[in-house]
Amino acid sequence: MEDIKIGIITSSDRASSGIYKDVSGPAIEEYFKNRLVNHISFEYILIPDEQSEIENALIKLSDEHQCCLICTTGGTGPALRDVTPEATESVCEKMLPGFGESMRFESLKFVPTAILSRQTAGIRGKCLIINLPGKPKAIAECLDAVIDAIPYSIDLIEGPYLEFREVFGPAFRPGKKKK
Amino acid sequence: MEDIKIGIITSSDRASSGIYKDVSGPAIEEYFKNRLVNHISFEYILIPDEQSEIENALIKLSDEHQCCLICTTGGTGPALRDVTPEATESVCEKMLPGFGESMRFESLKFVPTAILSRQTAGIRGKCLIINLPGKPKAIAECLDAVIDAIPYSIDLIEGPYLEFREVFGPAFRPGKKKK
Amino acid sequence: MEDIKIGIITSSDRASSGIYKDVSGPAIEEYFKNRLVNHISFEYILIPDEQSEIENALIKLSDEHQCCLICTTGGTGPALRDVTPEATESVCEKMLPGFGESMRFESLKFVPTAILSRQTAGIRGKCLIINLPGKPKAIAECLDAVIDAIPYSIDLIEGPYLEFREVFGPAFRPGKKKK
Repeated sequence: MEDIKIGIITSSDRASSGIYKDVSGPAIEEYFKNRLVNHISFEYILIPDEQSEIENALIKLSDEHQCCLICTTGGTGPALRDVTPEATESVCEKMLPGFGESMRFESLKFVPTAILSRQTAGIRGKCLIINLPGKPKAIAECLDAVIDAIPYSIDLIEGPYLEFREVFGPAFRPGKKKK
Repeated sequence: MEDIKIGIITSSDRASSGIYKDVSGPAIEEYFKNRLVNHISFEYILIPDEQSEIENALIKLSDEHQCCLICTTGGTGPALRDVTPEATESVCEKMLPGFGESMRFESLKFVPTAILSRQTAGIRGKCLIINLPGKPKAIAECLDAVIDAIPYSIDLIEGPYLEFREVFGPAFRPGKKKK
Repeated sequence: MEDIKIGIITSSDRASSGIYKDVSGPAIEEYFKNRLVNHISFEYILIPDEQSEIENALIKLSDEHQCCLICTTGGTGPALRDVTPEATESVCEKMLPGFGESMRFESLKFVPTAILSRQTAGIRGKCLIINLPGKPKAIAECLDAVIDAIPYSIDLIEGPYLEFREVFGPAFRPGKKKK
């Protein structure tokens, strides 16, 4: 069983200036601790909604810290200060539009405003980057919509071998036997 | 209750040269009059399928006329003269892919050729721009797929406060009480 | 009844170097022979996962051979060598995002990793280009999701008139009588 590193980036003007406490970052950490049997080191960065700061955080966590997965939270809406998808696209070599589609489609079951989310996902080197919404309740909904594709995705980019806890059943890997 | 301005751009070589009468523009006007309780001034532009003319019309209606919403009709297909999505993307600061996804998904219930539509949506300043199909029947189908997200979207870009007529129930605004 | 030309491009490092036999290309040929009543000439190119080679093959089949439709197979995933969508986008004048959305949505009924596919479609001149997955089983699933929109799409770009075999019913053409 491999140890893995997951990066979490909370981009929020208000949380980063101390106006409120970030609860979205911890919600992501909780989700993966609960789901994966691998030992996980979390790298956590809290920044304002500045595109260049988000880009630098993504590069640091993927290149320096060698996270196999980075989840961002916040900054995916239509407002002027929402720039997380732009930062993601600018540092990724490949975009994976299916993640955004599936997360919006799932969120639409809960709120009609799900179509306003511009969240996406992409690949930088051996790191999968996924944008999650800012609202803690929506984080688990969105991760549930894509979690079954994450381990195989990380296999394909030659990252570590992620395994689900037994209660969730084995992670889906097409045409492969479980290790 | 705020008065609002909505722009309507019909891009059609044939309608703009008088070969037939534009019925799509009036269908959009009818839809919003029926749905919103706000008093609405409509700004209406009829042009041929030329990218630069569509761009100029979008800029004029958003920047000069300060429309909070512009709906285009026509020019979203795969044909050579279909250039409305390109014009939209070139004047918007942010794209909202969820609108196109949801409108195509809804239209697919009626016609299998819905996947040919390249319609999208985006933000320019304080204006939400939405591409609608050219066929009048499909306009209401597509607007029905996204209308519940429009008022909150315009809140987020600091536009006016849109309200639905009572028969439709209050417009959805996550985490906010009705004004 | 018009004769038509369909191009098939298999991009696969392993199949093109002879490590295994390409079965995806023949699966596409089989699908269209079975579905269309038109006489079809197939142009078939097998190449490694190199973006420039895929681009050259797309240009050759659309411009020189005047295929009305090209289907690629392979190279749509998140791995480093998967570059077919990039090659497609770089030679197309217009992208048709609805094809990728619909194919992913359909594939999701079979495997949760469908969201990893970056497959798309676009128009180059009078040629419709569609990316299909590399796995033969997934090819028919994806084509089934979009086949009903293909004849009308080729009408709109002024290509030949495609007709389905009687068992499939007439191809959908909105507002048009069957020829």
